[in-house]
Amino acid sequence: MKTYNVAILGATGAVGQEMLKILNERKFPIKELHLLASKRSAGKKITVNEKEYIVEETTANSFDNIDIVLGAAENDIAKKYLPIAVEKGAIVVDNSSAYRLDKDVPLIIPEVNPQDIKKHHGIIANPNCATIIALVALQPLHAYAKAKRMVVSTYQAVSGAGVKGIMELQQQLAALAHGKEVEIQTFQHQIAYNLIPQIGSFDENGYSSEEMKMQNEGRKILNSPELAVNCTCVRVPILRSHSESIMVEFEQPIDVEKARELLANAKGVKLVDDPKSNQYPMPLDTTDQDLVYVGRIRKDISTQANALSFWCCGDQVRKGAATNAVQIAELLIEEL
Amino acid sequence: MKTYNVAILGATGAVGQEMLKILNERKFPIKELHLLASKRSAGKKITVNEKEYIVEETTANSFDNIDIVLGAAENDIAKKYLPIAVEKGAIVVDNSSAYRLDKDVPLIIPEVNPQDIKKHHGIIANPNCATIIALVALQPLHAYAKAKRMVVSTYQAVSGAGVKGIMELQQQLAALAHGKEVEIQTFQHQIAYNLIPQIGSFDENGYSSEEMKMQNEGRKILNSPELAVNCTCVRVPILRSHSESIMVEFEQPIDVEKARELLANAKGVKLVDDPKSNQYPMPLDTTDQDLVYVGRIRKDISTQANALSFWCCGDQVRKGAATNAVQIAELLIEEL
Repeated sequence: MKTYNVAILGATGAVGQEMLKILNERKFPIKELHLLASKRSAGKKITVNEKEYIVEETTANSFDNIDIVLGAAENDIAKKYLPIAVEKGAIVVDNSSAYRLDKDVPLIIPEVNPQDIKKHHGIIANPNCATIIALVALQPLHAYAKAKRMVVSTYQAVSGAGVKGIMELQQQLAALAHGKEVEIQTFQHQIAYNLIPQIGSFDENGYSSEEMKMQNEGRKILNSPELAVNCTCVRVPILRSHSESIMVEFEQPIDVEKARELLANAKGVKLVDDPKSNQYPMPLDTTDQDLVYVGRIRKDISTQANALSFWCCGDQVRKGAATNAVQIAELLIEEL
Repeated sequence: MKTYNVAILGATGAVGQEMLKILNERKFPIKELHLLASKRSAGKKITVNEKEYIVEETTANSFDNIDIVLGAAENDIAKKYLPIAVEKGAIVVDNSSAYRLDKDVPLIIPEVNPQDIKKHHGIIANPNCATIIALVALQPLHAYAKAKRMVVSTYQAVSGAGVKGIMELQQQLAALAHGKEVEIQTFQHQIAYNLIPQIGSFDENGYSSEEMKMQNEGRKILNSPELAVNCTCVRVPILRSHSESIMVEFEQPIDVEKARELLANAKGVKLVDDPKSNQYPMPLDTTDQDLVYVGRIRKDISTQANALSFWCCGDQVRKGAATNAVQIAELLIEEL
């Protein structure tokens, strides 16, 4: 079996750590593995499956002889190093948003548009986490009835802001339980016992950058330039897994039974839709696994259009980021 | 000044306690005040503003010589005692859902449809909490451009389930912080670090009873029988104040500037809409006060219709229940 030299760029962050775990879990055929991070983290030892890895400082030379780079760094680091990696012959699967909308960069969800991977020029982008979760759920319905409009409200966990987001919620809850002052560093406001209707920065049109990703990335991934999305992104005080309340208007008729049948047989989806028995997707149930759970499927009673509403949850650190990236790398080595 | 004999039915619950506080706060002209509850709570002493009240067991005789009853009990208790109270000459403002859709019972939000109060036959109903919060925000826009369709996703605090809901979240968080088992009694599932997309029971159409209230009560309050509402109600792990992500399609054109102007001048509303300065409504800020905060107002980019999206938060124990009921009682005594 052919094996590959793999580097994780940003290996010490929440997504980088999860990529390392998932490469091992899925037995990705690795020859050499390099964990790249900032100078500050260099020398740190990380043990996975009883094997010890030493974190290396990222430099231009880090990409010599690397076949595949998994990018888990912020946009500025991605922009600095990924072109170097490509120049040195590596193929990059990047989780930052730096290249997602570039014409030459495929934006891939393996369950949705695996065929687009062939168009790459060295960089393949991993979509936004909330977008991945929505589109894994939407794709089977879209393939049948063509989605034209979505109204989405998200309920996004603090882990979307990385390890520091998780720590901030836990520290704030602990401070409040002991009658102490709450410290705010990661989010714009206190997140414990609160909701923050802001993820990212705001555009002139009043939507946040996170909200616009659902439309901009959704159009590209579904190859559906007319898809119209009105999204509201909200940070909620839960640790992990994003949830989304989604209304979709379709071009063609589709009823609830058909939607359930399509979703029951869809790749990457688990249908959990028996509300009368209190069964529906919840973030606690979807944490630390790779499926997008879909339920609460019902006809939108507010319109004569072909419209359905549903509720979906998925682990945004795994399927929304690390697992999706490793799945892309798996598609890639089928081609190599 | 004329004064009134007032009884609170269900005085020991979260809403009943808040009604007591608000009657005092707003200096409601009380002659005698009776706190009615179950036999179990009878004899309990409750102090408000340094004045002590003794809880009485509710019986048919409890309503003798009472002018105004504020109902804060469950539907079964409301159905048992309110007709008796009316027969004895009291006027009832009821917070249960037992009579809300009855033709002879006005359903009142004082900022929205105060004129309807005149139609009462002894019972006036207080609307559902999430519905009150949405309609206080919607009313100024509806009066200008006529709402025809709403897609709503709610983020509802545990206090919607009363004192026991608050205790359950706090106990579960404490148990998790100390590595103990979580106990589930009030909600269908663990609510700490979780979201539950169920409030109430489910209808055949897949919507929950709480979700259908937004349409059914909204139509009656706005006197708008064609209003169509697709609502998704979700319990979130915060203590108090409900939040809602709302898309509204209007019959007439309305732009963001006009909506802001209307809301800035609306009764019961506080416009908090400067997202670039991180200013928007949040449940922490709306807790323990009576205004509905509205922000994140923007054009719905997913449709050619006259549609806006906004985000609103309000204290559902106060404006969503107790304050609204006391405001109705205030309207009532203007008539008496």
